Amino acid sequence: MRTVFWEDNQLKMIDQRILPARFEVIAYKNHRDVAQAIKDMVVRGAPAIGASAAFGLALAGYESAFSSTRELVADLQAAANTLKASRPTAVNLAWAVDRVLRVALSVTSSADDLRQSVLEEAQRIADEDVEINKRMADYGAALINDGDTVIHHCNTGALATVDWGTALGVIRTAHEQGKRVRVLVDETRPRLQGARLTAWELEQYGIPYEIISDNMAGYFLKAGKVQKCFVGSDRTAANGDVANKIGTYMLALAAHDNGVPFYPVVPTSTIDLSLASGDLIPIEERNPDEVLDIQFKGERVTPLEAQARNPAFDVTPARLVTGIVTENGIAYPPFEINLQKMVED
Amino acid sequence: MRTVFWEDNQLKMIDQRILPARFEVIAYKNHRDVAQAIKDMVVRGAPAIGASAAFGLALAGYESAFSSTRELVADLQAAANTLKASRPTAVNLAWAVDRVLRVALSVTSSADDLRQSVLEEAQRIADEDVEINKRMADYGAALINDGDTVIHHCNTGALATVDWGTALGVIRTAHEQGKRVRVLVDETRPRLQGARLTAWELEQYGIPYEIISDNMAGYFLKAGKVQKCFVGSDRTAANGDVANKIGTYMLALAAHDNGVPFYPVVPTSTIDLSLASGDLIPIEERNPDEVLDIQFKGERVTPLEAQARNPAFDVTPARLVTGIVTENGIAYPPFEINLQKMVED
Repeated sequence: MRTVFWEDNQLKMIDQRILPARFEVIAYKNHRDVAQAIKDMVVRGAPAIGASAAFGLALAGYESAFSSTRELVADLQAAANTLKASRPTAVNLAWAVDRVLRVALSVTSSADDLRQSVLEEAQRIADEDVEINKRMADYGAALINDGDTVIHHCNTGALATVDWGTALGVIRTAHEQGKRVRVLVDETRPRLQGARLTAWELEQYGIPYEIISDNMAGYFLKAGKVQKCFVGSDRTAANGDVANKIGTYMLALAAHDNGVPFYPVVPTSTIDLSLASGDLIPIEERNPDEVLDIQFKGERVTPLEAQARNPAFDVTPARLVTGIVTENGIAYPPFEINLQKMVED
Repeated sequence: MRTVFWEDNQLKMIDQRILPARFEVIAYKNHRDVAQAIKDMVVRGAPAIGASAAFGLALAGYESAFSSTRELVADLQAAANTLKASRPTAVNLAWAVDRVLRVALSVTSSADDLRQSVLEEAQRIADEDVEINKRMADYGAALINDGDTVIHHCNTGALATVDWGTALGVIRTAHEQGKRVRVLVDETRPRLQGARLTAWELEQYGIPYEIISDNMAGYFLKAGKVQKCFVGSDRTAANGDVANKIGTYMLALAAHDNGVPFYPVVPTSTIDLSLASGDLIPIEERNPDEVLDIQFKGERVTPLEAQARNPAFDVTPARLVTGIVTENGIAYPPFEINLQKMVED
């Protein structure tokens, strides 16, 4: 089953907030609920939210009663804005929405043709995501040696994409190639995507792993126990600066301090050549309750009056990045030149 | 009230496992229970466990029925070994126990005199700890400017000591001097000493703070929002390498990468000149349940089969340390020379 899929004229998504305790699929019938689901992190992971937003736009097409293509397109544009506003950091949310919108603008025959074309484009984005992930995984798996221990941050697996995964897809492919690979899983506070989702995926793939709190990565890197780090990215700037889940920057610093290669695995749809550097990437700050209510149950381990901060992403400077794995190959420094080549491929 | 104190021939300690939800004081009547309490982290923080172990030895004196000083000393030596084995990393546990033992060996008049002398020495260690902390706080507070935001890791306050605190004592003194200081509190996974204990102390002192997950420190340092970092230390080697709560090394890396000064606040009792470097400091690895059972309630957010690792400390290399605050002044590099001067002072 895919993380995000179209069935019975509805968008269906695995509810990632309650895994691994419960496995539930939620069906969405309108784009506003999809935008809210992205905001609430029912679905998360840059590629998965890109595909979800594309399908959200397909829903918006069926929501609109207009029979003229011009009026229908106006409704789609409004829906596109709602979907794009749901989360600011992952660039392929906007990329997917804009790609579907361009198709919508190109159809002038009838409103029903337009609706159908929008859905087909969303489906194409979803299908392509799986194919792209497998290509990235092949490139990335070549970096992993038999016997390697790797650190992985957040969740970048099938759940973060339509299927297969980005950084976790690399690890999965190496495992399927028969390489013995062991994963130290950053739990990834505050939402524990590592402890909950990545651990759940690794159980299913039969890949050995141990969970660590994020602040332990430096200890294991310094002890020489780790050969590589693999992470995803929500947006990568033209110079190779990588915005990714909060904590990635500190992990990259620890990898760099110990000479351990650090690889973001990045579909080209998340590369934003319009931004010269990572300083320009907008960073979402989420509800502090995600930090304070550590198990999302309305209980606090902190004093009741406590305040918190909750930036959801940080930017890892390109100088800490060994190489960037894309579906068109691995870009090495100078990223200003070599990332562009990957995008143009 | 002190964190650790002697009353009615018992050692009383604030139970730090249940704060801030409940405030309870536990009374101990024998040294084995004290050793277990140190192991279970009823009491934690290098200076606090040093004083607790010293009082534990006083209890051992009263437990022993021997009336000859020689036999009583043998019992104390056995108790000293039990207490020293409770936790391996903090060196002033052994320092405090050995100091009390030396006094025991010097008393030959009567077993009761010896028991009394042991208790007095333990009490002296406790009283001195408060005085030493205030001296460190005076030196350290001079480093804080009006308006500073500082990052603090773990808990190093009154609860980590007999009273006042080390790194948090510095912040407290700066606040009492009328300087406006704001604290970003690392929650400090896995046991959340920051979110639970440091936040609870800061509430009481009226010092403004916000809790962050440990992996967010790099974001705020990179954003230029932080002027200094203050941490404690469980053991500092002769070359200035600092063993402290897990996560300190990654915080130091992020501070260093952004040119933000990083200061361990370290009573000389935690400086171990017998170790040339931090590589020789034994690092305790604790029960993985502390990582997996995130709220210590027997519930898991992870898959039920999940394994974890749990190193409790890491070593920050001296090259990342700006200065080491002691009760005899602030040591700056070269630490090989200047730390020794502080100890000899």
